[in-house]
Amino acid sequence: MFHISVDHESKKPMYLQIYEYIVNEIKQGQLPCNSKLPSGRELAQDLNISRNTVNMAYEQLESEGYIEAQPKRGYFVREMDGLLDLNTPLEVQLSNTGGETIKEYRVDFSPFGIDLRYAPNHRWQRLMKETMLDTGADLFRNGDPQGDIGLRTAIRDYLHRSRGVNCREEQIIIGAGTDYLLMLLTRLLPKDTKVAMENPAYQQAYRVFHNFNYTIYPMPLDEEGMEIQPLKESDANLAFVTPSHQFPLGIVMPVNRRLQLLNWAYEKEDCYILEDDYDSEFRYQGKPIPALQSLDTKGKVIYLGTLSKAISPAIRMGYMVLPKSLYEVYQQQASFYATTVSRIDQEIVRRFFAEGYFERHLNRMRGIYRAKHDYLLSRLATWKERVIIEGHSAGLHILLEFQDAMYSEAELVERAEQAGIKVYPLSAYYITGCSVYPTVLLGYANLTEEEMEDGLHLLEKMWEI
Amino acid sequence: MFHISVDHESKKPMYLQIYEYIVNEIKQGQLPCNSKLPSGRELAQDLNISRNTVNMAYEQLESEGYIEAQPKRGYFVREMDGLLDLNTPLEVQLSNTGGETIKEYRVDFSPFGIDLRYAPNHRWQRLMKETMLDTGADLFRNGDPQGDIGLRTAIRDYLHRSRGVNCREEQIIIGAGTDYLLMLLTRLLPKDTKVAMENPAYQQAYRVFHNFNYTIYPMPLDEEGMEIQPLKESDANLAFVTPSHQFPLGIVMPVNRRLQLLNWAYEKEDCYILEDDYDSEFRYQGKPIPALQSLDTKGKVIYLGTLSKAISPAIRMGYMVLPKSLYEVYQQQASFYATTVSRIDQEIVRRFFAEGYFERHLNRMRGIYRAKHDYLLSRLATWKERVIIEGHSAGLHILLEFQDAMYSEAELVERAEQAGIKVYPLSAYYITGCSVYPTVLLGYANLTEEEMEDGLHLLEKMWEI
Repeated sequence: MFHISVDHESKKPMYLQIYEYIVNEIKQGQLPCNSKLPSGRELAQDLNISRNTVNMAYEQLESEGYIEAQPKRGYFVREMDGLLDLNTPLEVQLSNTGGETIKEYRVDFSPFGIDLRYAPNHRWQRLMKETMLDTGADLFRNGDPQGDIGLRTAIRDYLHRSRGVNCREEQIIIGAGTDYLLMLLTRLLPKDTKVAMENPAYQQAYRVFHNFNYTIYPMPLDEEGMEIQPLKESDANLAFVTPSHQFPLGIVMPVNRRLQLLNWAYEKEDCYILEDDYDSEFRYQGKPIPALQSLDTKGKVIYLGTLSKAISPAIRMGYMVLPKSLYEVYQQQASFYATTVSRIDQEIVRRFFAEGYFERHLNRMRGIYRAKHDYLLSRLATWKERVIIEGHSAGLHILLEFQDAMYSEAELVERAEQAGIKVYPLSAYYITGCSVYPTVLLGYANLTEEEMEDGLHLLEKMWEI
Repeated sequence: MFHISVDHESKKPMYLQIYEYIVNEIKQGQLPCNSKLPSGRELAQDLNISRNTVNMAYEQLESEGYIEAQPKRGYFVREMDGLLDLNTPLEVQLSNTGGETIKEYRVDFSPFGIDLRYAPNHRWQRLMKETMLDTGADLFRNGDPQGDIGLRTAIRDYLHRSRGVNCREEQIIIGAGTDYLLMLLTRLLPKDTKVAMENPAYQQAYRVFHNFNYTIYPMPLDEEGMEIQPLKESDANLAFVTPSHQFPLGIVMPVNRRLQLLNWAYEKEDCYILEDDYDSEFRYQGKPIPALQSLDTKGKVIYLGTLSKAISPAIRMGYMVLPKSLYEVYQQQASFYATTVSRIDQEIVRRFFAEGYFERHLNRMRGIYRAKHDYLLSRLATWKERVIIEGHSAGLHILLEFQDAMYSEAELVERAEQAGIKVYPLSAYYITGCSVYPTVLLGYANLTEEEMEDGLHLLEKMWEI
């Protein structure tokens, strides 16, 4: 009746062999519904195995719903809707198999890189160890949705001291990166939010807003940043700005434009400014420009910061400071979202801040980037007849504007690529329109002086400088 | 003219003292717009400091936009829109200051706990150390948006072996917890998604769907799980189910109901089943029930898993397996979202899987929880005249159903609380309606036998059992 060939030598438990045999018989229609299974005693005798083993197989079949016990009659195959056929498992043919070949460049002037040669991995390792020794299993407990209070206090102190940000720990939300924090912010903003964005802009934020189907108004920039008149004429109720160092143009927004922006927000109900302070740490003369948030007296600025530039994009940690009104919305509607950052990581970063390593690391990196920045600018001194160098007061990239129009922007990029050099066309960051003159971004954070020299030398040839 | 009292002993750099003095003068209206600042030479002489120090202060003021240099005339205060007044900094009065007093219970029968006495913190510490030694700064690089391929391979292997899940690495997305993955999923689902949810249900998923303004249809459950007829009659196009162990009722969905559910999804365009396999690891007899996804031949099941129960909720890591059609939407529309999990953590977990610790840890925890489960059931044997014990075939909690109606559910909870015992009313998990009989959940994962005994003893008194 049953031709189960159990393999007594197999590693697979006997009960599983019986279970799998019967599942297959059912799936292939050999055991139709309502057919009776042999009794446990019969099958055990047949196969010369213990009654208990058969029982285990039958119990598994019963708990998965393949068979049912009918009192005093034994086990029967249950009715099934739809035919199963294990012989045609789901064969997934994916259009994009992730095997994209990423082009390797000889020199990549990425504006998004940071210098990982100086990543604090030894310090990190030590803090990890100390964290686990000091706190142990405690860190495996559920954490606060906003992030642990100790870390929020450390971040508040840092933001107040270094960026002039006025806030309480309660207003800070720690999250796994800027994209996530923007996602969470969409849960808090008024329903009909329309976003005024700098044009050109940080593409990642644009993508998030676009993905959430927000109306987006690209705003022109003058030499002081986002223009106020077109903003006032639009019905935008959120202005996304990078006042410390506009991405990609590098504009530092002066106090007066900041005040104008704040006044715009003060005059409207449910109207906010989203300040992305993504790389304010890297300023090479004087002290960092205080955050726009520090001028806000009416709770209109949402402040966004990240550890991606200062430590590493891989640690996935950012923070958002909510003004009071949005904090209240958060409390009511979104505080149920569990935190997105591991508590172990939170504690490591807290120590990194509290023990002063963060500011020391920043100072060190500032020195390293300043040297690269100065080297790049001095090396480009001879280019000044052909290009205007812009956006060099802060941050980790500069802009080269070609006013002679010998090559178009696309040609500049294309010719660089022919020599294995990657440069970044400014027009790619425009939401609408494009740059007036052919302009490319050169990032330098991730390059040594030798690499820069190599790249610039080749660019001189390809661009006929 | 200028009465700056510079403090030569102060730790604050001289240039900052000058800078701050002038900013305050401007903010308080003492230095109105267009007023001329003393020349660098004059001020340096006045204060008996170097010219360079004054220049640094002026440059900082200029770069923040407080003053401007007019050629051959010197520095002037710029025009400002709106009055600044630093004397009234933003005083944030928060309605909820986070100082909530969390009630401490003598015994908390939480269905959400896990036993952290056995958290793998030593193993974790070792893997952390090895990870940092082996890979170092490399882990500070940007990671794959879906999660690192090595970890996805480890998870695919585990899911295939233990849960019968059929998928390729490409279909897996690693994310910082179930809430985040559900958020991300809302970016992929068809626009008019209407969700059929088990009633009662897992509240956290309900909250996310509700927060994204999805139409939610509460579906009745019979002893096999979500009923099919009302599902068919609704216009839902997403069914959220917990087939391995329904939360909170503990129902294991039999094969036939699974097939009916799949057939429902097969018949509709853009229709999916979301399988939340949140605690399938903890089954005490036989092998775990294979995932519903393993029966899917047409790419209709979205599979959701988490490491919260198996390792710890604090490590913030879950995974989502997308069917082909949604994977394509992801590639086109949402793959720009950066990963939410640190690469260091991903590598630690990869090693935890690859080196076999995960399955060993699970086996150990299964044994520990089984012992607690068996103890609780045997201890409750004497209660059987008053209560029906349900949902005890798997997972980390059981249900006590009181059919005598001596106390209402609220009274049961209230009386337990009087003795310092926390039990969880079933009705709290209903989207609409409530349980037929007074029923409470008792979770046991986080309790020792002594704590259970203490709690049950007190409950016997309070509930007059």
